[in-house]
Amino acid sequence: MTDRPAAFRRDWLRLARTPSVGAVTFRELIRRFGDPSLALEALPDLSRRVGRMTPIAPQTPAQAEDEIAAGDALGARLLLACDPGFPALLAALDPPPPLVWVLGDPRPLERTCVAIVGARAASALGRRFAGALAADLGAAGLTVVSGLARGVDGAAHQGALATGTSAVLGGGVDDIYPSQHADLYAAILAAGGCMVSENPPGRTATAADFPRRNRIIAGLARAVVVVEAELRSGSLITARLGAEMGREVLAVPGSPLDPRSRGGNDLLRQGAAVCEGGEDVLRALAGLSGLAEPELAFDPLPAVRPGLTGLAEPELAFDPLPAVRPGLTGEAPQTARDNLLALLSPSPAPRDEIVRLSGLTTSEVNAALAELELSGQVVFTTGGGAALA
Amino acid sequence: MTDRPAAFRRDWLRLARTPSVGAVTFRELIRRFGDPSLALEALPDLSRRVGRMTPIAPQTPAQAEDEIAAGDALGARLLLACDPGFPALLAALDPPPPLVWVLGDPRPLERTCVAIVGARAASALGRRFAGALAADLGAAGLTVVSGLARGVDGAAHQGALATGTSAVLGGGVDDIYPSQHADLYAAILAAGGCMVSENPPGRTATAADFPRRNRIIAGLARAVVVVEAELRSGSLITARLGAEMGREVLAVPGSPLDPRSRGGNDLLRQGAAVCEGGEDVLRALAGLSGLAEPELAFDPLPAVRPGLTGLAEPELAFDPLPAVRPGLTGEAPQTARDNLLALLSPSPAPRDEIVRLSGLTTSEVNAALAELELSGQVVFTTGGGAALA
Repeated sequence: MTDRPAAFRRDWLRLARTPSVGAVTFRELIRRFGDPSLALEALPDLSRRVGRMTPIAPQTPAQAEDEIAAGDALGARLLLACDPGFPALLAALDPPPPLVWVLGDPRPLERTCVAIVGARAASALGRRFAGALAADLGAAGLTVVSGLARGVDGAAHQGALATGTSAVLGGGVDDIYPSQHADLYAAILAAGGCMVSENPPGRTATAADFPRRNRIIAGLARAVVVVEAELRSGSLITARLGAEMGREVLAVPGSPLDPRSRGGNDLLRQGAAVCEGGEDVLRALAGLSGLAEPELAFDPLPAVRPGLTGLAEPELAFDPLPAVRPGLTGEAPQTARDNLLALLSPSPAPRDEIVRLSGLTTSEVNAALAELELSGQVVFTTGGGAALA
Repeated sequence: MTDRPAAFRRDWLRLARTPSVGAVTFRELIRRFGDPSLALEALPDLSRRVGRMTPIAPQTPAQAEDEIAAGDALGARLLLACDPGFPALLAALDPPPPLVWVLGDPRPLERTCVAIVGARAASALGRRFAGALAADLGAAGLTVVSGLARGVDGAAHQGALATGTSAVLGGGVDDIYPSQHADLYAAILAAGGCMVSENPPGRTATAADFPRRNRIIAGLARAVVVVEAELRSGSLITARLGAEMGREVLAVPGSPLDPRSRGGNDLLRQGAAVCEGGEDVLRALAGLSGLAEPELAFDPLPAVRPGLTGLAEPELAFDPLPAVRPGLTGEAPQTARDNLLALLSPSPAPRDEIVRLSGLTTSEVNAALAELELSGQVVFTTGGGAALA
């Protein structure tokens, strides 16, 4: 699984951990340079050329080696988005997360995954329902993915313990949050499940980590089931991210007089499928069975996919970065950047919308946005939308 | 409102009350003969000619006069489907009920009506929700229609008392069922609401009356809201009838662990709109506001609609009844009847489906089915579907 040279893996990690290099920009840099080492080498100069005052300082090799050593010490695996073992649905995201750490048995991630998410302050009925649903889905050969949180998440993991369940964490794979779930955490690992995180081992979760955590939950799953959720809750964000990714979204209906039903009922109003049990989930998935696996056309990392011997040539067709394009003055891309800066606002806009409004190609927009992130003028949301910094 | 001669009204009632004359056949006979008296006169001979052993004996004039006198004594009004005061949405049904009795102030029926129906054994929350929803809809200028039953129905009427609510009864308009709702019944009338029934005053409801009662509830309403309902409950039948009539159908979501939620959740699965309160109903109705009132093209009683002076000529274009068609041998219609008998089974089939399969026109099918009902070979369901007797 880890057939890349150690230096490649280390540099991939360094690039992913470098400040101002989000997932969109990471993908652009890999597309441009093919090899993370080359991207890291070019980054300081590149960031100056796109208008940054202080050049970007990539993560040091020692920092990346420390992270890898910490993961090794835990027995965790680092999966790069270009690794064959990287979950295929995550690799097909736009943009894909550059990497995840997995602690425990990663095989549950190879089965069809269903996310069950919901309120931390779930009702006793809600927790019971989540547990029974998870057990049914597990018995049907599916992997239940959730967030190890109190309430619905915990009940879902518990229900699916016997069949292998996967918890996506906001902190590192060794960051047990909430601490009351230490026994559940241990039980998941002991029962052949796994922990997944984008963050380095040893990292303690902060509030800012959970939106990205939720994107991984939705990204791993073919269907997202919301059991109990208030309006404006993290579970609804997970469901929305899932819908944007084309996942089946199901919601468990509940009394309008219970605030914990509002989120699910609102999803139903927006077209989510009714979930009264495992059968509804299986029916929703059956509707997808005619669909192929993610196509290589959507592959975010064509230059470095497994099956290619070594690294492909940088894709000059996509070459977006004037600073390193020999012989070009950079004028046209500067125009693209200005064009996008005029379109963007402090409110995030989806990239497909930006493409439409700009009249540019998707490649041109992604490239220009990557430059703008590197220059510190643009930030990306968890879902990949872009906003003025 | 009652500008028809007394004899016309009495004979309309007699024809409607004659055994083997259901709503489909009633309409066919009125279309054919224009005047209920002529239809009654022709009926014995006609029924013999279509193959009946013992000719149909129409209700006697005395029986109809007794019913009218009983209604008058209560202060109830008899509304014929051809009367200007007959609820327009009922008149547009296929087939329309030939008549209804109304006790109390009929004006609530002239406003936009919303049906709220649900379980008799509703939960406390369900009843509370139904009452609050009814109050909200009443405050918005709508009339709440329901069935005076225990549970959701009662709570809905109670919530809408102040604004005028309408109860559709299985028995006569004086048949208070359940008896525990005597106070509610009186309160509805005292508060300017009304009772509606297809059945004669004095008639005690039997189980067989409730499907027709449910059809009137759905027929009066522009939207049907199901608050709590088990699978295979009368409320679901009302919702299904409403859907077939093109009404907006809404369901209040509920926990899958409560059997009383199953019916509503199943409606949501089938595409009903989520109802968490009055706003959802108003939104559903707003979607209809661009639609015109029922068109005259759908008018079931073109020959005798108000605005025409006296009675129109019998519509020979639709003439379906060989027995009274001079100069015709009856052969072709006999073929139509045989054609339909071959298509029909003991399971009811929708008439539009029968039309499609038969290759006949809707008029030909309705005419032939009316003959088959008169001959005792076909029965109609509440929704107007046809089955072998």
